[in-house]
Amino acid sequence: MEKLSKIGRYQFLAEPFHCDFTNHLFMGHLGNHMLNAADFHSNERGYGMNYLNTINKTWVLSRLAIEMYDMPKAYEKFYVETWVDSVMKYFTSRNFKVVNEEGHVYGYGKSIWAMIDMDTRQPTDIFAVREGLINEYIETSYECPIEKFSRVKVTGEEELLRSINTYYNDVDVNGHINSVKYIEHLLDLWDLDWYRTHFIKRFEIAYVAEAHHGDQLNFYREHREKERENDFNFKITKTTNDNAEVETCRCRVLFSSIL
Amino acid sequence: MEKLSKIGRYQFLAEPFHCDFTNHLFMGHLGNHMLNAADFHSNERGYGMNYLNTINKTWVLSRLAIEMYDMPKAYEKFYVETWVDSVMKYFTSRNFKVVNEEGHVYGYGKSIWAMIDMDTRQPTDIFAVREGLINEYIETSYECPIEKFSRVKVTGEEELLRSINTYYNDVDVNGHINSVKYIEHLLDLWDLDWYRTHFIKRFEIAYVAEAHHGDQLNFYREHREKERENDFNFKITKTTNDNAEVETCRCRVLFSSIL
Repeated sequence: MEKLSKIGRYQFLAEPFHCDFTNHLFMGHLGNHMLNAADFHSNERGYGMNYLNTINKTWVLSRLAIEMYDMPKAYEKFYVETWVDSVMKYFTSRNFKVVNEEGHVYGYGKSIWAMIDMDTRQPTDIFAVREGLINEYIETSYECPIEKFSRVKVTGEEELLRSINTYYNDVDVNGHINSVKYIEHLLDLWDLDWYRTHFIKRFEIAYVAEAHHGDQLNFYREHREKERENDFNFKITKTTNDNAEVETCRCRVLFSSIL
Repeated sequence: MEKLSKIGRYQFLAEPFHCDFTNHLFMGHLGNHMLNAADFHSNERGYGMNYLNTINKTWVLSRLAIEMYDMPKAYEKFYVETWVDSVMKYFTSRNFKVVNEEGHVYGYGKSIWAMIDMDTRQPTDIFAVREGLINEYIETSYECPIEKFSRVKVTGEEELLRSINTYYNDVDVNGHINSVKYIEHLLDLWDLDWYRTHFIKRFEIAYVAEAHHGDQLNFYREHREKERENDFNFKITKTTNDNAEVETCRCRVLFSSIL
């Protein structure tokens, strides 16, 4: 396999039907583009899903943080750049930069991925794959100047805002609720009036346990700190067929007010 | 503007996170690609939304029918070809062909579009736009060998299967429920077990009235004919804030059994 640059760069279009009522790309679709970029980048370099599946392993997204200055508008072309900035035995850290042809930076992303064995669902040694090939692609000097993942605590004061059912369109090829669908369902908790005056400045999600078709998802919210009215912590749980309630995700959403 | 060919051809990728648990592209995402192709095709030829919005007019999708032999699988590249095959004063008919590089035909689509005035929301004369420019792009000989739109009747025997709320992610740039979201919500009425043994052979939707953020959507179903157990007619209504129930769509879904 030809040795590629450490940083991958993939062009996307803010498709008009992927934009919200303000004519800007939905956060869920941006997250989807980032996951695509990660997938293309790792496949092209020989340690992507396409190869891993042949040896019964796969990547699992563990955390994703997105911080934006502005969102691409309908019909704008933009690039998602992505690179791996560190690798440990069981986890990699992968960054994203969202930028256009002229160099305008829309925002950044950070993610953490685990490699698991598809039978046991347990973490597996990343360096054992192709003799640690991924080590040849670590890029530490390209800047991703956003905050690290923050701790998302829930104190017991969180309030149940909504419970929803999951259906056919929520389920990905692994039979799990699609990572992006959590983002969409969570951001659906606010109405158009809120989005007229609030911009999603930062979105963070930590995946705790996988949910499946038919599970009910429950969204619990509390303010991150009492005096910060635009900064929210979330716990998402699933209620399974046998009525057990189990946590699936922790999230943080920080809005900025639009003047 | 340079004179382009009558048929537009746009490449898409069956993105892995746009595929269902069987690893095939979701019907909703295919519908979205068709709408994109229509949008690109008409914009490039000077009678698209981008121009129409400057003269306070827009295209509105009135009907869409999709008939498939098979669905693109994850990572497959395919083309959506599209062309206008007839124009009347208030409506155009636009066809789609879904095909890959090797000429394999996945399926076809047909659509009807109205042009409306954005203030009055009333139909407006298509031939009055750029002196009937669209007439130069009518293609009548390229084949789209699927059935015309069928009449979707409901007899009063239809059964209410589900009611859902609509949220931020359902709403498009015009403030209406996104055309593709109806497809997704409708196809969510069946579970994974059904899709393990049934392929969506034909999907038809006729848009009757626009729904808005916060409207509740109600899905009523009946068999199209008593002896055809895989062929369904639907009526979708909206329940608005003042509790009025108004029809928004009629649909037909025809499945074929997977042996």
